Amino acid sequence: MKYRIVLASGSPRRKEILAQIGASYDVIVSDCDESTTVTEPAELVKELSCRKAEAVAKELTGPAIVIGADTVVAYDGSILGKPKDRADAKRMISMLENDTHQVYTGVSLIIKEDTGVCNVITFAECSEVSVDVMTDRQIEEYLDTREGEDKAGSYAVQGIFAAHIKGIKGDYFNIVGLPVAGIYKRLYEIGIDLKTGEKL
Amino acid sequence: MKYRIVLASGSPRRKEILAQIGASYDVIVSDCDESTTVTEPAELVKELSCRKAEAVAKELTGPAIVIGADTVVAYDGSILGKPKDRADAKRMISMLENDTHQVYTGVSLIIKEDTGVCNVITFAECSEVSVDVMTDRQIEEYLDTREGEDKAGSYAVQGIFAAHIKGIKGDYFNIVGLPVAGIYKRLYEIGIDLKTGEKL
Repeated sequence: MKYRIVLASGSPRRKEILAQIGASYDVIVSDCDESTTVTEPAELVKELSCRKAEAVAKELTGPAIVIGADTVVAYDGSILGKPKDRADAKRMISMLENDTHQVYTGVSLIIKEDTGVCNVITFAECSEVSVDVMTDRQIEEYLDTREGEDKAGSYAVQGIFAAHIKGIKGDYFNIVGLPVAGIYKRLYEIGIDLKTGEKL
Repeated sequence: MKYRIVLASGSPRRKEILAQIGASYDVIVSDCDESTTVTEPAELVKELSCRKAEAVAKELTGPAIVIGADTVVAYDGSILGKPKDRADAKRMISMLENDTHQVYTGVSLIIKEDTGVCNVITFAECSEVSVDVMTDRQIEEYLDTREGEDKAGSYAVQGIFAAHIKGIKGDYFNIVGLPVAGIYKRLYEIGIDLKTGEKL
């Protein structure tokens, strides 16, 4: 008995993390409605991860585990999305420097049996990120790199911005976009090996 | 005025971290005596990082910044080196699972001026790593991957072992082998940009 592992995300960073632990998986992405009125970070990422996983799961036949994920950056209780433009990115980085903020990733695991019966595990994980003091010049230089243009919070922890990160508390890979230890552990607890998709 | 940035380490992981922040650098490795009677982790990594940097710096002419680094894993105050064999690796992983341990990286920055005058900055950074509960089967499976054979503490945080890491506290890249934010910051404070080797 073997499940097909399906990552419901096109993010190259999420793919890398799953590959890193030696998992065999396919990537299938389906459009889903990402509009929501939820404003609490943990609830929001859980809801969106679930929609992403459901959109893919309903298209599949045969036993599969579909992994949906959504990541947001939160500062002082407010969610920071992707920057609209350079000024917006500057506003965010100026907010984050010399302080600590949170990164939430929500994960939904849809376990689809042969019979079509689905079980869903949903959780959110929070990691704290402390950013060093940055001068105006350092912020401008970082914006020049354009690294954060398409990233929530306007930065990439696994990129150039690493030079400005004092430290973190929690799962590093959760910040990158996929709390792989949390996923591995939850599947192991119900008797499934994430790396192979096999029952233990 | 521009310094040549020289990484005094052949570790592919350290090279990747420096490349990640966009630094231009050369790699030069020189043999040095790594025997020591120091047993305190922070002191040990500082001393060895200094020897590595010095061995390279003395061979260079012209302005340069030589980066030496040494990393150890410590559990309950004792240093865990690279495993001798599979049984030794098993002993270490069994020690680390379901508990928190420390990873120390020592860094020495030798700033060599045109005139030949050298200034040295040495520091050690400590990150905490919490490993999930692992069953005997999970430990054996991890040993089968042989990932930790040449690694201090018998595991690689940036590899398959990520599936078993509950969380960290401190700089993630310090655990991988190079506390890049700490290096960048210390050089910036004395007016040098690590990314370019230029004076600010």
